[in-house]
Amino acid sequence: MESTTLVNGQPSNTLEVSDRGLAYGDGVFETIALSQGQVQLWQGHQQRLITGLLTLGIVADRVSAQNLVDAIANDIQTAYALYGRPKGVIKITVTRGSGGRGYAPPIESIPTRIVFILPWPLGRSHLSGDGVRVQICQHRWSNNTALAGVKHLNRLDQVMARREWSDSNIHEGIMLDQNGLVISGVMSNLFIQMDGVLITPKLDQCGINGTMAQVVRTIAEQCNIDVVQQQVTLELLLKADAAFMTNSLNGMWPIITLTQSALGSPSLNTTRWPISALIQTLQKTLAQHLSEQLTVGEIC
Amino acid sequence: MESTTLVNGQPSNTLEVSDRGLAYGDGVFETIALSQGQVQLWQGHQQRLITGLLTLGIVADRVSAQNLVDAIANDIQTAYALYGRPKGVIKITVTRGSGGRGYAPPIESIPTRIVFILPWPLGRSHLSGDGVRVQICQHRWSNNTALAGVKHLNRLDQVMARREWSDSNIHEGIMLDQNGLVISGVMSNLFIQMDGVLITPKLDQCGINGTMAQVVRTIAEQCNIDVVQQQVTLELLLKADAAFMTNSLNGMWPIITLTQSALGSPSLNTTRWPISALIQTLQKTLAQHLSEQLTVGEIC
Repeated sequence: MESTTLVNGQPSNTLEVSDRGLAYGDGVFETIALSQGQVQLWQGHQQRLITGLLTLGIVADRVSAQNLVDAIANDIQTAYALYGRPKGVIKITVTRGSGGRGYAPPIESIPTRIVFILPWPLGRSHLSGDGVRVQICQHRWSNNTALAGVKHLNRLDQVMARREWSDSNIHEGIMLDQNGLVISGVMSNLFIQMDGVLITPKLDQCGINGTMAQVVRTIAEQCNIDVVQQQVTLELLLKADAAFMTNSLNGMWPIITLTQSALGSPSLNTTRWPISALIQTLQKTLAQHLSEQLTVGEIC
Repeated sequence: MESTTLVNGQPSNTLEVSDRGLAYGDGVFETIALSQGQVQLWQGHQQRLITGLLTLGIVADRVSAQNLVDAIANDIQTAYALYGRPKGVIKITVTRGSGGRGYAPPIESIPTRIVFILPWPLGRSHLSGDGVRVQICQHRWSNNTALAGVKHLNRLDQVMARREWSDSNIHEGIMLDQNGLVISGVMSNLFIQMDGVLITPKLDQCGINGTMAQVVRTIAEQCNIDVVQQQVTLELLLKADAAFMTNSLNGMWPIITLTQSALGSPSLNTTRWPISALIQTLQKTLAQHLSEQLTVGEIC
């Protein structure tokens, strides 16, 4: 079997058409690496899931959120048994379920749990070593302080930004917000290196709190590398000594070229960055950290 | 049969779980009154649908968009035959379909068409005459100039705002944007009356271009009432002589009370408005306009 899908714990490829996930993007999701038969960084992913469920009010309290996440952990084990391979991509979607009158959620909703295990994407593994080429996207993040950081299902911004290129030599895009501040990649968080310090954009207006980004911040601290979260302008980005992106599947991707259209001109400005010693140190430490996280026994 | 649902023209209550409408809210929708066996304001709804499909790039060009809308018109006729009653709510959802690798849409996607016909909501018809009570929502619109106006499926803002009240004596909420400007209702457009002129908020940062709002603007011009689209502050709103909201199902709802929480205080400030002569004139003209739109023959 190529991929496995469970809806509320049962093998299924369909969903009720009245689900609020479809109607309004009323839900959250996670994309997680299945590595050596283990759910990588499950702790971080489940914490973000709980935070998202509470922010959207899909669950009433932390206990209900934990119960829901426990049911998802069971689903993952069932799906893993059906999938039958040690490596893949686990995608979890939780919606508020069906019902309600228009935008008003039902008083007691039964969340829908969807667990996919998909084949691991091929042709990407060399990019951690070789580095990636990125471009600045024209489409910008929607700003909203109340939803910033949450990995909810309203992801048109990413779709619109990702539509901007089909060149397979461009691996990621960098997205700005409505004020022109640099926020993240389309599917990654962004770190820039400057005078030995790492800077990562503030995500209080938009963006997603990355699970891998959090791990990298922790590791950087262990390596005595300061990480500062602040506003990042395009000018600051272009002055960086080096830069990289993080993502739960890809780990750390060093950026080797950044391309942007010159304003009012068809020509392109390209910034080139080295894969710095600092980035290589972090990559080694990250690989070690991730392998230590893999424990024998339960999948999650 | 209580309601009717067609997926890609076939009766179905389920959707592929891999649909991008669920994954990313990658699609658009319309909610339309079925009245006396006719699709009310079909011309306006189909135009907005086409604009949305083109903005999101779900169709490549205007001809493909029109073909898709023609298929939807067929679906509506099929659904209407199954539904078998002259009054109801037609909801159309069009997604980019399944597939693609992550956020990247497939090169050639086959859009998913979903047509629902649902029973007409009861207990609302007196509100056009009696007026409605509304409150200011805490949750604000996400700002995004590129998506403003489009009735896409990323509607968490409306869900979050609508969650703020369960009191059935509150009929609608008024939503501000990230800058604190007044934009619209949760499910309606907003008009305020000031010195005989109608003012409606600019929707260049967020909001949805309302089909009924467009009709009301046209009617107001016919009645020699000026309509100005401009930035509306909360201060301006509170100084209005009268105000009303528009929606494809509800027509015009005069606002009789507007409640807002006083900053840092549990007490509420309430603004009261009359149902002005101007509003009543517009309502009569609207009713006549809508009845004239209903033609004998094809449903749409």
